[in-house]
Amino acid sequence: MRLKNKPWANELVEEHPESALDRPNPAEKIDWAARFGNDKPIEIEVGSGKGQFITTLAKQHPDRNFVAMEIQKTAAGIILKKKLDEGLDNLQILCADAANLVAYFGENSTSKIYLNFSDPWPKSRHEKRRLTYKDFLAKYQAVLTGDGLIEFKTDNSGLFAYSVKSMNNYGMHFDFMSVDLHHESEEIVEKNVETEYEHKFASKGQPIYCLHAGFLAK
Amino acid sequence: MRLKNKPWANELVEEHPESALDRPNPAEKIDWAARFGNDKPIEIEVGSGKGQFITTLAKQHPDRNFVAMEIQKTAAGIILKKKLDEGLDNLQILCADAANLVAYFGENSTSKIYLNFSDPWPKSRHEKRRLTYKDFLAKYQAVLTGDGLIEFKTDNSGLFAYSVKSMNNYGMHFDFMSVDLHHESEEIVEKNVETEYEHKFASKGQPIYCLHAGFLAK
Repeated sequence: MRLKNKPWANELVEEHPESALDRPNPAEKIDWAARFGNDKPIEIEVGSGKGQFITTLAKQHPDRNFVAMEIQKTAAGIILKKKLDEGLDNLQILCADAANLVAYFGENSTSKIYLNFSDPWPKSRHEKRRLTYKDFLAKYQAVLTGDGLIEFKTDNSGLFAYSVKSMNNYGMHFDFMSVDLHHESEEIVEKNVETEYEHKFASKGQPIYCLHAGFLAK
Repeated sequence: MRLKNKPWANELVEEHPESALDRPNPAEKIDWAARFGNDKPIEIEVGSGKGQFITTLAKQHPDRNFVAMEIQKTAAGIILKKKLDEGLDNLQILCADAANLVAYFGENSTSKIYLNFSDPWPKSRHEKRRLTYKDFLAKYQAVLTGDGLIEFKTDNSGLFAYSVKSMNNYGMHFDFMSVDLHHESEEIVEKNVETEYEHKFASKGQPIYCLHAGFLAK
């Protein structure tokens, strides 16, 4: 979702290069181990919006490394404010285009990729922009470790069907799927971390679709 | 769905061995070419219920061969009555257990397998009874021709998610998928042949899930 430009958010990003990278040069390697203070694998959310999902996850799991990838600088600044307010040392913000994912992270660096309520790009001629298009899957495959997973959620039935087909046709292994995530078993519902958008949508009784999938061969 | 026993339906099956086979011995080969009067590939519905789907399809496509496979003799008799009333020479009824599919049809005999609103068997300990369990997929793979397809529909979200996972992890290729079949494009909705159960369910506004999938390697 396109946000209104907020000067304070843009400025905050510029004031905190230790926590947020603003469109870094893809030709220069990012030293994530130095930024996190450890060399554990990274979990990336591609398209974090205002960051409710990734900040909640970072708070729940202080022992894991998270990166909020978000192309809109204002949104990146809003996530950064949450990170600073809550002292989330295990969360970094990357304001950049997902097309450069492999350059930014390198191979076998990442254990999870979260795709939440991505833009559905419903027109056929925009297929290549969908974050589950095969060219993006190839990038995820490159950065993920062997047992790494993509965790994908959407309320959009067209994007869901497209993505399941795309991941199937690419040869991925399906680990978990739901066509009504908020009405699964109590254990699954309680473990689910909501995005701001998901909360609004599900409270109207609309189904949330979900797929967890990995690559069998690296 | 379990039907009340109807003596007239059971008797009708017994009176028409040329149109309906009542639990034939799996050890004896069935001569489908003789029964249909041609050797074109067969399209099988596994679990036809009262037969609205398969009789409609047989009427629409007099040039194709259809088999309604249904384990309940009363249901088989109800389908048989429709076949006789409408003079559907391209429809045969097989009152038998799907476990014997390969013995009844032989390899590479079948171009389509339809699974419509199959029993979801929701308990984990009944997984092996679900018609999309891997052992059943192996039987479908054996009888289908190289470009053959399984066309699967259900209103049950749990069975759908299970089946998508099962077919994907078996290595099948997805050709078409919808999580809301009755709200797809006009072309798709018009081509869809409804079962009696589907009509009732969809008219309440509940989603119908659908997957078409084939085997890449035979």
